Amino acid sequence: MERILVDMDAVLGDVYARFIDLEIKESGIKLELDSLVGKLEQDAFPHFDKHVHTKGFFRHVPLIDGSVEGLRYLNDKYEVLIVSSSTEFPNSLTDKMEWMEENFPFISWKQIVLCGRKDIIKGDAMIDDHLKNLTVFDGKRFLFTAPHNQLIVDKSCQRINHWEEIKIYL
Amino acid sequence: MERILVDMDAVLGDVYARFIDLEIKESGIKLELDSLVGKLEQDAFPHFDKHVHTKGFFRHVPLIDGSVEGLRYLNDKYEVLIVSSSTEFPNSLTDKMEWMEENFPFISWKQIVLCGRKDIIKGDAMIDDHLKNLTVFDGKRFLFTAPHNQLIVDKSCQRINHWEEIKIYL
Repeated sequence: MERILVDMDAVLGDVYARFIDLEIKESGIKLELDSLVGKLEQDAFPHFDKHVHTKGFFRHVPLIDGSVEGLRYLNDKYEVLIVSSSTEFPNSLTDKMEWMEENFPFISWKQIVLCGRKDIIKGDAMIDDHLKNLTVFDGKRFLFTAPHNQLIVDKSCQRINHWEEIKIYL
Repeated sequence: MERILVDMDAVLGDVYARFIDLEIKESGIKLELDSLVGKLEQDAFPHFDKHVHTKGFFRHVPLIDGSVEGLRYLNDKYEVLIVSSSTEFPNSLTDKMEWMEENFPFISWKQIVLCGRKDIIKGDAMIDDHLKNLTVFDGKRFLFTAPHNQLIVDKSCQRINHWEEIKIYL
């Protein structure tokens, strides 16, 4: 059975919505998604560093639209691994496990990988919002649309704009 | 450069010493290492489940003799990844990152993988105390001696009894 590596942040979890909410609390200013196009999260959100290092940040991330149904579809059809670059943020790790257990109870702890780089994981397809993870991956590449990658054109990747589109390609 | 996958528990961290200490606190009884030979940790320690799920358990594990010097030697010579089967224990994850940072500051977060199974990681050699991880690994296999594996004879693995022996083979 083919193995699909699925990213967590901005693919399953709507980290943009979480950052925007917290920036409102920090400064009272609501950042609009349109103004964030083409910027990496660390450049788009003034308090990025503070929030990603704070326990509780990842525990309360809302879901990306369609992610539960989409991941259940993949999990029924393929061998799914959730692969999250997260060891940079030690306080996020327990949060991420609890968040997965709450929102995706059909995914076992055996299917979750928390790491610092993704090119060390064996897989046949990868769904990720970061081109840097996809370009070093030797399987099928799916670029999940997020504001930071919206302007990128890369013919080595299939772009996915919404979880419903997953069924077209996988 | 060859990539070496190094296990954490019972290879870098002396989890046996930690379990024995905590069992004394639980029951007043000191379990002797000789009496634990051939038993997996979950069978050897009556309060195993309670302790591995408790935050703080992994944060205060003592070091395996020679592990700091041994890992530094490997890290200078090879590409080292620390691979720990630990997503089963969500409360261990932040502990493990803090413990690595304290005891092995020369290992970056980029080199640490917290996962549920190890056969998904690409590598050229693996050092592990669990035969089940080594037998599904397609590179060079090194069985690091621990009480539970002491009686095992497996010709597909090179046994390592102490970190000083690492330099003979790697």
